[in-house]
Amino acid sequence: MKKLIYFLVVLIFPGWLQICQAQQVSMVNAAPGVKKLSVGSIDKFTPQSFAEAPSRQALADLPHDKAPFQASDIRIKVTARGVVVEIPLTDDEQLYGFGMQINSFNQRGLRKRPIVNDNPLNNVGYTHAPMPYYVSTGGYGILINTSRYTTFYCGTAAKVKDNANAPDGPKNAQSVNDLYGGSKAASNYVTVDIPGAIGIEVFVFEGPDMRTAIQRYNLFAGGGVLPPMWALGVKYRVKADFSAGQVYKMAKYFRDNNIPCDVLGLEPEWQTAAYSCSYVWNNKLFPNPQNLIDSLKQSNFKINLWEHAFVNPKSPLYNQLKSRSGNYQVWGGLVPDFADQTTRNQFAAYHKATFADKGIAGFKLDECDNSNLAYGSGTWSFPELSEFPSGIDGEQMHQLFGLLYQKAMLTLYRANNTRTLLDVRASNAFATPYAAALYSDIYEHPAYIQMIPNSGFSGLIWSPEVRESSSSTELLRRTQTAVLSAQTLFNSWYLQNPPWLQYDKGKNNRNEFMADAKEVEATVKQLLNFRMSLIPYLYNAFAQYKLKGVPPFRALVVDYPADKNVYGIDNEYMIGEGILAAPLTGNSNQREVYLPQGNWYDYNTEQKYAGGRSYTITNQTDKLPVFVKEGTVLPLAKPVQFTNAATVFDIDCRVYGQNITAATTLFEDDGTTYSFEKGNYNTLNLSWQKGKGYVKRTGNYNALKYRIKSWREIR
Amino acid sequence: MKKLIYFLVVLIFPGWLQICQAQQVSMVNAAPGVKKLSVGSIDKFTPQSFAEAPSRQALADLPHDKAPFQASDIRIKVTARGVVVEIPLTDDEQLYGFGMQINSFNQRGLRKRPIVNDNPLNNVGYTHAPMPYYVSTGGYGILINTSRYTTFYCGTAAKVKDNANAPDGPKNAQSVNDLYGGSKAASNYVTVDIPGAIGIEVFVFEGPDMRTAIQRYNLFAGGGVLPPMWALGVKYRVKADFSAGQVYKMAKYFRDNNIPCDVLGLEPEWQTAAYSCSYVWNNKLFPNPQNLIDSLKQSNFKINLWEHAFVNPKSPLYNQLKSRSGNYQVWGGLVPDFADQTTRNQFAAYHKATFADKGIAGFKLDECDNSNLAYGSGTWSFPELSEFPSGIDGEQMHQLFGLLYQKAMLTLYRANNTRTLLDVRASNAFATPYAAALYSDIYEHPAYIQMIPNSGFSGLIWSPEVRESSSSTELLRRTQTAVLSAQTLFNSWYLQNPPWLQYDKGKNNRNEFMADAKEVEATVKQLLNFRMSLIPYLYNAFAQYKLKGVPPFRALVVDYPADKNVYGIDNEYMIGEGILAAPLTGNSNQREVYLPQGNWYDYNTEQKYAGGRSYTITNQTDKLPVFVKEGTVLPLAKPVQFTNAATVFDIDCRVYGQNITAATTLFEDDGTTYSFEKGNYNTLNLSWQKGKGYVKRTGNYNALKYRIKSWREIR
Repeated sequence: MKKLIYFLVVLIFPGWLQICQAQQVSMVNAAPGVKKLSVGSIDKFTPQSFAEAPSRQALADLPHDKAPFQASDIRIKVTARGVVVEIPLTDDEQLYGFGMQINSFNQRGLRKRPIVNDNPLNNVGYTHAPMPYYVSTGGYGILINTSRYTTFYCGTAAKVKDNANAPDGPKNAQSVNDLYGGSKAASNYVTVDIPGAIGIEVFVFEGPDMRTAIQRYNLFAGGGVLPPMWALGVKYRVKADFSAGQVYKMAKYFRDNNIPCDVLGLEPEWQTAAYSCSYVWNNKLFPNPQNLIDSLKQSNFKINLWEHAFVNPKSPLYNQLKSRSGNYQVWGGLVPDFADQTTRNQFAAYHKATFADKGIAGFKLDECDNSNLAYGSGTWSFPELSEFPSGIDGEQMHQLFGLLYQKAMLTLYRANNTRTLLDVRASNAFATPYAAALYSDIYEHPAYIQMIPNSGFSGLIWSPEVRESSSSTELLRRTQTAVLSAQTLFNSWYLQNPPWLQYDKGKNNRNEFMADAKEVEATVKQLLNFRMSLIPYLYNAFAQYKLKGVPPFRALVVDYPADKNVYGIDNEYMIGEGILAAPLTGNSNQREVYLPQGNWYDYNTEQKYAGGRSYTITNQTDKLPVFVKEGTVLPLAKPVQFTNAATVFDIDCRVYGQNITAATTLFEDDGTTYSFEKGNYNTLNLSWQKGKGYVKRTGNYNALKYRIKSWREIR
Repeated sequence: MKKLIYFLVVLIFPGWLQICQAQQVSMVNAAPGVKKLSVGSIDKFTPQSFAEAPSRQALADLPHDKAPFQASDIRIKVTARGVVVEIPLTDDEQLYGFGMQINSFNQRGLRKRPIVNDNPLNNVGYTHAPMPYYVSTGGYGILINTSRYTTFYCGTAAKVKDNANAPDGPKNAQSVNDLYGGSKAASNYVTVDIPGAIGIEVFVFEGPDMRTAIQRYNLFAGGGVLPPMWALGVKYRVKADFSAGQVYKMAKYFRDNNIPCDVLGLEPEWQTAAYSCSYVWNNKLFPNPQNLIDSLKQSNFKINLWEHAFVNPKSPLYNQLKSRSGNYQVWGGLVPDFADQTTRNQFAAYHKATFADKGIAGFKLDECDNSNLAYGSGTWSFPELSEFPSGIDGEQMHQLFGLLYQKAMLTLYRANNTRTLLDVRASNAFATPYAAALYSDIYEHPAYIQMIPNSGFSGLIWSPEVRESSSSTELLRRTQTAVLSAQTLFNSWYLQNPPWLQYDKGKNNRNEFMADAKEVEATVKQLLNFRMSLIPYLYNAFAQYKLKGVPPFRALVVDYPADKNVYGIDNEYMIGEGILAAPLTGNSNQREVYLPQGNWYDYNTEQKYAGGRSYTITNQTDKLPVFVKEGTVLPLAKPVQFTNAATVFDIDCRVYGQNITAATTLFEDDGTTYSFEKGNYNTLNLSWQKGKGYVKRTGNYNALKYRIKSWREIR
């Protein structure tokens, strides 16, 4: 019988494909404003198959309008090679997304291959978060629900026309000089290539505008993440070979000098084996880990532990996971089959019992993203041809590995009713509700800034970490960017001392401090204090992310899609509803800033600027380069050094604009648990009417986090 | 019925894969010393499916020994994702090949993805000649007969072991500092990933040694190419916007100044449309092309024409090829379905009637290799999802496009009984017998040198072209490399004047010559004269390539596989049997040279060196940095400015070594036709015995190309 079937299959294989080609596209409403198109046999291991439940009520509450095309205008074809999807594209649409892209922003006119990798590889599309997803200024988003390596031709793959003289396609360049001057193959489709697939699902997130489409994607993924309040403070990762004593000393340094810090991170050597991981404390450096955890807790520090998900033979998890892992090793360790729920649960259960239950506040998953470079050795991670017990292949596991780690680890923190913010080096679609910040070894400052607005298209949290620098000024500029991002992180895994005492790596490790170390330290403290002032505002922005899907950090084009001047602006971005950040790089104290329509205020000088044009602005290193939109009520807290259950913020409200009526909200809860999901929170309405401020508190949370102390109008 | 079959297929798809996995590997002797393993359903469009006939007699004449493993030790598995091949690898084997690799040489320990591209993309494996093929110092070669994008893990993909403490895999690094210091996943297999395939053929080329394995591959492909003798002279490509008058002027410059030159190349603007191509003379610049061809022929110049294979709507070929092309355009032009023989014939027939029959000696196929960069526009070339009438997909067409162009064009030159040497930017496996030199826009001089030994592993001809430079010295060093390569090519497509009059592009185009232009020109002439002296020796080396498959340009490891010191040497190489070239780069006149076992002579100083160690050698820009192996008879000709039917070389023989007995051969034929394949050639045996030289001429060629004038012993 088997032979007969085999014979039949081989005989009719081409015919079978023809049948597939002729298959009908089926379309359903997956959620309000979310259409799902399906063709053929759908892969088992798609990003959506692992997604959390959609926020259906919030989706229904969004304004609703159709995409500029009928979903049925999307063409889907199954070929012998895979699936091809063609999505209509008008001449003036601009496209953004594809996850955490590095070195590209507006993706129109590019070919993108969002494949998980630690290196952007000349802008091919390789990224830490390879999302098969984009949004359009046309007011919609598209998600190709696949974990396969997929290529998007963003209006660049032009078909042969029946009429050879059709204006489609480039002019007839006569030489490469002409040619490279700009002519490109032009197409009114985004063409998507999904080799290996024999069926596909396409999600269409409707507008009416790009911002709503992004909200819709985020809410369909389950809504944004509300990190614990302490995660909005300062995180500092200590040198990899620090002992418990050195960690205590570093904690004491922060408190003695009144420098804000909420989290200390330990790097590889806290374990007995790290590449791959044992998940066992290295007792030479840390003879009594529980003492460390408890003492630091008393000083209001959280601890975050570095790890891989690759399980070393020395690990207690090894024998348990051996039959639940892929058939190839990474750094001698197992690759757990995270596509399998039991495997995820076992991995998480060990982490819960051994670490989380004992007070470890979070983890950092390093090098889960594959590499083409790996410092000369060609690659790390498992090969794409790996096989896993669940049936997922190595290619799809690559794309999903970081995402599934998040899913595993967040289950355990939810079980403990304790929120966290993980650090991860890989993610994918439907990660919006996962409390994890992406980071990268790519260290170019302009790229780090660009990734902040890029993160907002795709429901991601991006953490542009500060390491060493080439000057004090660069160090301070990088610190500013960290302060103006979702997570303020110093990664000193190879630095004996904080980088603000010595920006140069070699000198830092020889304890040679800069002559002006104390002045630079004071400036850093000033910048970090601004961060702490901003926590209530940021916390509210994340609450809006959770409840309404509005990304707290957004490109200008998200808020101003009609303004063509912002289509390419990737070095400015919105924070919450009222703040525009324009970070500086290098050693200059000037930069160009474009301000969109409306009026804006320089936060530092309080000078008013008319929008719709660019300005050369000056910014000193001790002030944050931010502008505030007219009509904003900006609640700013008296800075604290950390937050804990007892923290109450004293808040001054600044009102930007003369004789305006304006309002904002603050989100008030315990700051650390999931109780708010059961309604255990307050909303503070802060409104300004006729020269007077009003506070209205509604909700069920029975303690106080915010005290509004004053109001000030800025004209 | 169709529905029933469809139902059956969907039902048993996983089962069918299980059946495939269980399938037997079949093994046949494809030719003497060439084994072919097959599993499953073989793709229709493999490189081998387009190959020329093997040189069976020459294969049988090779010494014969088995590979260090049984071919049956190769494991092949068909999975849901594709095919996985595992080839045994011992600890001390070194691997080379994968086509024209750029920036990598010894491939052991690397992951390589030989995919056609104009850019090496951080050494992922992208290349102009993406061959799924490697050779081993173990004395064998492996070719995976696929046109799909394939990944080779060269001993880097380690499986999980039953015994977790097995020494396989890296040590337990504690930090990335430890880790990146060198530990790698180690495996005793080369693991090959061929996604999308449902069957595969693997060819094993047996030794006994690596050199014989390479010969065997080359002979199985049909034997090497013997270019026309004029192609071993100097080729000069003129500025893209030159008119006929400017071309004449350039030709006159060469002859007036006695600077050797055989070929002038015209760049894009000779056509009415170039990006894509019309294949129609641009009569504004060239009002009477036949006059140009004829006049230059009288001055003993050949003409080579630049082109794409992308057919512009303005081309007479457009309507003919429209139904024979892919469904996507490139630069507005058709992509002919070269996998179809009729399409190749039609493309070639037009070129024959319009150009070759009228005296055009050759073509240059540009930008047939895809790009990930394309100067910011994201990509050129057709998408992988393209469909073609023959049934080949875009991915496989990408890999084969340059190869199939060569096949098409060489058919026409064979039909005219006129040999040529094309320039191409893409090739693949089984290209050995095709008369085409690869070139690249990658312009780093060390990479250009490395590609010379790399070409020899894979049956390719590499042409490191000279453009502009940053100094006179660099220009002369690049000229030396060009002289010491398969094709000596100056590509001045953007230079008004020869680069030796002004190396700086801007000044060159403003006709601002260097103060020492005449001195540099004299040095270039001296170097090119050396090239012309070497033609008989080179021509014989190519004849050995044709008849025995010995690559004329080879890495040292090919001739000295037992010498571990040469495993990584990629900046020296053998030319023919007796010459070792060690080109210099940059502005220094010194470099380290490793000389393998035996004795060697500096060609210039005639100083003798003992091999098996390195020396710091000095080389001035007017002398070629070459060493001659003891025991070599080196026939050197009195330089000519060009070759034609009447050319007779006056030859002095140098004999390297004291009191030795030695011999070499020269290959004598008409130099331009295929008549030699019918035996119409002579072999000159040049032997040295007891202090006296002997010439013995055998064969059927009835004219004289070589006159041996003198002998000299060098001790």
